[in-house]
Amino acid sequence: MKALAIDVGGTKIYNAVINEKGEILSDVVKHSTPRDLDEIKNIFKDIIKKHEKEVDVIAFSTAGAVNNENTKVIGSTGNLVKGYSSIEFKNLSDKKVFVENDANAAAWAEHVLGASKGCANSIMLTLGTGVGGGIILNNKLFKGKSGSAGEMHFKMYPDKRRKCTCGSYDCFEAYASGSGLKKTAEEMSHDENITTYDVIDGLKSGDEKMTAIFNKWQNDILTGIIGLGNLFDPDCFVFSGSMAEFIDTEYLEKSANAEIITQPTKVLKATTGNYAGMIGAALLALEVQ
Amino acid sequence: MKALAIDVGGTKIYNAVINEKGEILSDVVKHSTPRDLDEIKNIFKDIIKKHEKEVDVIAFSTAGAVNNENTKVIGSTGNLVKGYSSIEFKNLSDKKVFVENDANAAAWAEHVLGASKGCANSIMLTLGTGVGGGIILNNKLFKGKSGSAGEMHFKMYPDKRRKCTCGSYDCFEAYASGSGLKKTAEEMSHDENITTYDVIDGLKSGDEKMTAIFNKWQNDILTGIIGLGNLFDPDCFVFSGSMAEFIDTEYLEKSANAEIITQPTKVLKATTGNYAGMIGAALLALEVQ
Repeated sequence: MKALAIDVGGTKIYNAVINEKGEILSDVVKHSTPRDLDEIKNIFKDIIKKHEKEVDVIAFSTAGAVNNENTKVIGSTGNLVKGYSSIEFKNLSDKKVFVENDANAAAWAEHVLGASKGCANSIMLTLGTGVGGGIILNNKLFKGKSGSAGEMHFKMYPDKRRKCTCGSYDCFEAYASGSGLKKTAEEMSHDENITTYDVIDGLKSGDEKMTAIFNKWQNDILTGIIGLGNLFDPDCFVFSGSMAEFIDTEYLEKSANAEIITQPTKVLKATTGNYAGMIGAALLALEVQ
Repeated sequence: MKALAIDVGGTKIYNAVINEKGEILSDVVKHSTPRDLDEIKNIFKDIIKKHEKEVDVIAFSTAGAVNNENTKVIGSTGNLVKGYSSIEFKNLSDKKVFVENDANAAAWAEHVLGASKGCANSIMLTLGTGVGGGIILNNKLFKGKSGSAGEMHFKMYPDKRRKCTCGSYDCFEAYASGSGLKKTAEEMSHDENITTYDVIDGLKSGDEKMTAIFNKWQNDILTGIIGLGNLFDPDCFVFSGSMAEFIDTEYLEKSANAEIITQPTKVLKATTGNYAGMIGAALLALEVQ
């Protein structure tokens, strides 16, 4: 069994053919994400036309919350073009079309093949421009009543300090993301031109100020996982995304377990790589096939 | 089918005979909770000896986290006597003995018979001296890897302001509980003798200062349910406990839905009453019987 997997992010669209073991059987093709809805649909149609004869199912891993029927995007983030949630994915092919949120799909790939394999309950946090959340409970993807559970928008402060992309204030995402690190750096250095690269370079070279900024950011992540640990009592946390390589999982695990009142948890880094979303979507789509 | 239900709290122990419909068939008997472990065990033995012949199962609803096998308390709160978690409940009777955390049991009673009936996903918050949490996901009690999920100890601030009973700082419980209201009142009035009664009396009589304190407390609850709403995407929240009667569910629902990025949720008050823990434990115990 094979799936045509298509990963739709705010800046790039990837596609590949993947089998039921999660093996990528084709080249991975990359496109820029157009800012126009019709152009996005045309890219989808072109990709599907090219590959649908050789696969059993089309598997989308996409930004935005996806409904429990895995057919539609129900909540679109600011990163995607207006009207994206109007796309009727099932109409794109005569084959079955399966859609899942990218953070959920990536969490599933880790659960089946990666760092959280063997963990019945895990929480995956993808630290990039934003923070993606994928929650596995009792060996199943947890989606909530409408499909959009796992949004990492719980508050770090109750008193409106930092605007979040969701329109509200002080969400975990606004602190724990790469954008959050930049904002923390701006606040602590009083320099609005400071970048996350400055912080990471400074951390690596032992610069005290940059290390303090990094530690503040990492401790905000710690604050988040303590709360998630007490709420979900997970076997493990898995970190992925461009910012994940810099975090100290040993420190986070030890510090979190010192405060969590449920049972100890593990803090791990993801192992399935950049195509986790496509792999997870393919695995999920082939499972329900 | 009938259960002998025993509710164990920090100050009182209740018992009653309850059937599979959740109907209380006997008088509800009340005892003070002894501060001695052997005395607690003796009360359990006396209650069980008196009733075990007339019931099919013994159902404990108890403070403290309970394991996934429903046989043992795995994490004891400061409210219970030292050594409480060493009790081997199954040895207390020849009948099957079932144990569940009181907040979980109460959430189950509401799910089967009360405010959250018909909601596949609900979060019950019991606002008393502390905050109890019971989470129902996909029509099942959610317990996490070890049984202790649903601890309402996620942080309201990342920077150590208010000590929590769990040993950590700034947990939701430390703000949203009755004790949290007193602490908020102390901080805002600079009067350490102020009580929650003063705040509630002032709220009722329209006192501006007391109303501001109450609103701060209620908005901390709002902050919590926004985060829980985004994480769990529940159909509803249910509030119970001695402090729940004062909250404005209409305000909380409207304000939470204005910020939640998942789908709208409901905010309700519990309807099964003070014996929800016993009723829920009985229903759960009779279900697995």
